[in-house]
Amino acid sequence: MDFKKIGIIGVGLMGGSLALAIKERFPQVSLWGYARKPSSYRRIKKLAFLDRVSTDLAEVVKNSELVVIATPVFTIIDYFKKISPFLKKGAVVIDLGSTKEKIEKEAKKILPADVYFVGCHPLCGSEKSGANYARRDLYKESLCIITSKNKKPAKFIKKFWEDLGCKVKFLSPQEHDRILSLISHLPHLISFSLTEVVPEDYFRFSLPSFKDLTRISLSKAELWRDIFLSNKKNILLDIDNFINVLKKFRKLIREGKGEELREFIEEINKKHRNLMKDGGCY
Amino acid sequence: MDFKKIGIIGVGLMGGSLALAIKERFPQVSLWGYARKPSSYRRIKKLAFLDRVSTDLAEVVKNSELVVIATPVFTIIDYFKKISPFLKKGAVVIDLGSTKEKIEKEAKKILPADVYFVGCHPLCGSEKSGANYARRDLYKESLCIITSKNKKPAKFIKKFWEDLGCKVKFLSPQEHDRILSLISHLPHLISFSLTEVVPEDYFRFSLPSFKDLTRISLSKAELWRDIFLSNKKNILLDIDNFINVLKKFRKLIREGKGEELREFIEEINKKHRNLMKDGGCY
Repeated sequence: MDFKKIGIIGVGLMGGSLALAIKERFPQVSLWGYARKPSSYRRIKKLAFLDRVSTDLAEVVKNSELVVIATPVFTIIDYFKKISPFLKKGAVVIDLGSTKEKIEKEAKKILPADVYFVGCHPLCGSEKSGANYARRDLYKESLCIITSKNKKPAKFIKKFWEDLGCKVKFLSPQEHDRILSLISHLPHLISFSLTEVVPEDYFRFSLPSFKDLTRISLSKAELWRDIFLSNKKNILLDIDNFINVLKKFRKLIREGKGEELREFIEEINKKHRNLMKDGGCY
Repeated sequence: MDFKKIGIIGVGLMGGSLALAIKERFPQVSLWGYARKPSSYRRIKKLAFLDRVSTDLAEVVKNSELVVIATPVFTIIDYFKKISPFLKKGAVVIDLGSTKEKIEKEAKKILPADVYFVGCHPLCGSEKSGANYARRDLYKESLCIITSKNKKPAKFIKKFWEDLGCKVKFLSPQEHDRILSLISHLPHLISFSLTEVVPEDYFRFSLPSFKDLTRISLSKAELWRDIFLSNKKNILLDIDNFINVLKKFRKLIREGKGEELREFIEEINKKHRNLMKDGGCY
């Protein structure tokens, strides 16, 4: 990679881990991080992931060949506007947002014509947030989805992720948002809802299964608000489909249809065995 | 413990693990297991957990001071009838069923007046089933709930579980079923429903969060049919309450109420932090 300067906006779990991974793989690059507030400036400085930390956005973006935006979805779109005046001609802008259709659309609308945008979504992360949890191996073996079609820069960014240890898959923004809605957004909404519905004084009886289902209820509110609102069409559809399955269970239980209930669960058991066989993407 | 003979009916994951734990702690006891079918007879024999395996229920139950029934809920109730003619006077019968109100009621109705029944539910297990997965440490550090009030035998059985490494808590069958419906039964129904709603070809994108939420979708159909049907009142109520939370999310997302959505998720984050603080029961 022949980048001399990379600017990272949003040095949290994802951005911080990316900084560590880049520094390990490309030690020659000058890595800049943007800190919006003096408090985060001090915190990021102290963690020493980056060569330079600045509270001046222009300073971070100017002359960067690659600008990475690793914030919640609507904040990403805000930064498209804020960084546009400072972007170097031919620079590549990537984001790590969890929904892609809205971001791709706004990038096209807002970013200058002489820069390249490549939408990325590395399928990794944690229910924990903040640079304190950053790990240099967060991206290793994970799947990164690229949703942009501009051939040369997308191919280049594919190589960038592969150099950091990711597998890369191209999907359209629409396909991405459809799949992620079911695989990630609905599960988070379910976990939040389960935590909400259980009285707090029952928690002391919680079993491994309950803990597994509610682990991601810790996931950051601002991040998930933006994901739900920017993938509204899909998540509303999936909530409805999910409620329909719950209602099917409800009906079988209420009517005491033991045989049908057993058959229904057996089909689900079988489907789940196929999930385990595939092993997922990581 | 001064038992000379213990009979186990249902040598699967729970019954098999109990056999291993008893054998380790009380090697002097003569441990008998009942195998309903010749195929399970051969399988259980081969695993060599027990001193004697028999396909003759009378032989297993006769002279046993303790009879353990470790099968799905409605099968437990069937065994109350089947074992009654063979039970020794003063014998203690326990079950490991996941719902307790129905079982306690039927035990009182069916079992002879000169034996003692103590309803037990050790809060451990796995999505895997069968004696092949039995482990001698399954019960260690786990919480066992006792739902019977007959003082002397319940106290005696409390000591039995404690000797095997469990913590013990007494709850009424009603309290037990109310709590478990939310902490265990609803989460299983949610996991089944999520696996059902996701198209199989999306599984290759599955993330750790999705895997965590669907892990228990492998749980045995017959077992869970019985749990849902024997805890009908509670689970129907909890499905409704859960759907209401999903609908609250749905409304906030549909109407684009970003601020309320963030606040709602933040409250849930906070509640979840308390769950982690308590550390659950294990």
